[in-house]
Amino acid sequence: MDVKKELSIRASKAEEIVCKFLPAEEGMQKTILGAMRYSVLAGGKRLRPVLMDETFKLFNGQGEIVDYFMAAMEMIHTYSLVHDDLPAMDNDMLRRGKPTTHAVYGEAMGILAGDALLNYAFETALKSFEDPNVDITKAGKALSVLAKKAGVFGMIGGQVVDVESEKTGQDITEEKLDFIYELKTGALIEASMMIGAILAGASDADISLVENVSSKIGMAFQIQDDILDIEGDESVLGKPIGSDERNAKATYVTFAGINKSKEEVKRLTDEAIELLNQLPNKNEFLQELLQYLVYRDN
Amino acid sequence: MDVKKELSIRASKAEEIVCKFLPAEEGMQKTILGAMRYSVLAGGKRLRPVLMDETFKLFNGQGEIVDYFMAAMEMIHTYSLVHDDLPAMDNDMLRRGKPTTHAVYGEAMGILAGDALLNYAFETALKSFEDPNVDITKAGKALSVLAKKAGVFGMIGGQVVDVESEKTGQDITEEKLDFIYELKTGALIEASMMIGAILAGASDADISLVENVSSKIGMAFQIQDDILDIEGDESVLGKPIGSDERNAKATYVTFAGINKSKEEVKRLTDEAIELLNQLPNKNEFLQELLQYLVYRDN
Repeated sequence: MDVKKELSIRASKAEEIVCKFLPAEEGMQKTILGAMRYSVLAGGKRLRPVLMDETFKLFNGQGEIVDYFMAAMEMIHTYSLVHDDLPAMDNDMLRRGKPTTHAVYGEAMGILAGDALLNYAFETALKSFEDPNVDITKAGKALSVLAKKAGVFGMIGGQVVDVESEKTGQDITEEKLDFIYELKTGALIEASMMIGAILAGASDADISLVENVSSKIGMAFQIQDDILDIEGDESVLGKPIGSDERNAKATYVTFAGINKSKEEVKRLTDEAIELLNQLPNKNEFLQELLQYLVYRDN
Repeated sequence: MDVKKELSIRASKAEEIVCKFLPAEEGMQKTILGAMRYSVLAGGKRLRPVLMDETFKLFNGQGEIVDYFMAAMEMIHTYSLVHDDLPAMDNDMLRRGKPTTHAVYGEAMGILAGDALLNYAFETALKSFEDPNVDITKAGKALSVLAKKAGVFGMIGGQVVDVESEKTGQDITEEKLDFIYELKTGALIEASMMIGAILAGASDADISLVENVSSKIGMAFQIQDDILDIEGDESVLGKPIGSDERNAKATYVTFAGINKSKEEVKRLTDEAIELLNQLPNKNEFLQELLQYLVYRDN
């Protein structure tokens, strides 16, 4: 299987679904509706909605209930990037080679477009409640996971500790780094796979297994990021390596060394795949995708 | 009835409810949890949760389901103020005589605390789904209204058009001003009263009557604000008058003149009260509160 090609096909499908739910760029608030659309369409691998959809399929999920949540997830991921890029945060004018939202629309509109995307993610997921084919108990459970993993005990929590460590210039501890990795990147990956399982009607035991799998994958994904920043091929990565060292940013490799880091990526991935294999259900693409994410070269 | 005194008793009760739902200031993300609490406790009349609770009572609502939504509503109102005060927006260092959130915690934390409050509002409202005494269909309907009225077709939409008019220095049209008033201030007042009615189990016709009442009250409330900025007593208001004129800010009074504005406040309020009187249910305090809000002197 050509995972990269398959992923790109599924990513395009996910992008179409998100687009379908984005409001049309019209009316008095046209500017912000444009800024929301610009932010979402500025690119990205659409990993989170694809992971959600594939986990939904793993548990034989039926119908279109997952569409609302795929769209909501990508909106939340996008808002977090829009706010991350703001002058008071990372102050980035470019992301994936394109001007960031505040670079195009100004800082005030960058803040408001982020707010609007976060809010619209909930509006979108809540639209599933009006769908007569949707089981509202499942949708409610999925919505609770989405909210919790995106919030102060999820992604925002990780972001806060990361920002705080950078701004105060304090030496980061290994405990803090684990916390940041688990929440900042991990939480939305966990939520994506968990929501896929919940919406497909998986049992509580299976949902908890999926949480475990996705938590290991999220951590391995992040450590691989640190490794690529040292050993990656700039022409494949599409960005310069060595940025962590230049910014004196402590990473997993700083604490564990490069060899131990590679071992850890392998250990976490093996454990995740082994867990997944305990399920009677199979989704070959999901298996390959998880390994590809972790052992990727860009 | 001493409305002012009664309101302050109910506002304290509402504040206690919001506090009960705010997470404890501990753990790795202690700073942001502190910033969230600081923002919510920095004062305010707690009008929105009080209006929600009183509308809930008007329709004989029972139980504690409304508590989750009172807290969620105040968190959304608070996040909107925290983001409004940011340097890229109104750049205010003081609100109600106290340093604003970003003035205390820095700009990055101001952005993140706002995001966290918006997200936590949904987490809080979603906690009602786990309460065995809660009717999940009602809670879902209330949540949809909350999300819609807070978003780009509600409060944020009004805020965007307001910011855009100010930043571009364009002459504002009467149509735009109506749009801003209806959404920026009106939407959350509407949501508050509608959610109270929904959670109490009011009929669709009654919910729509309440939307109508609250829309008129929201508009009258805002026009009264413009009148007070011209004719108010600074010692009662607690802030200098004439700020709209100094900032060359077009208000309802700019278009209609002061007498027509006063007539409009009276017309809207009379209509709202008349509509409310069509209901067999009565809540004397709510009636007086609505009139007090509109004819207030501060």
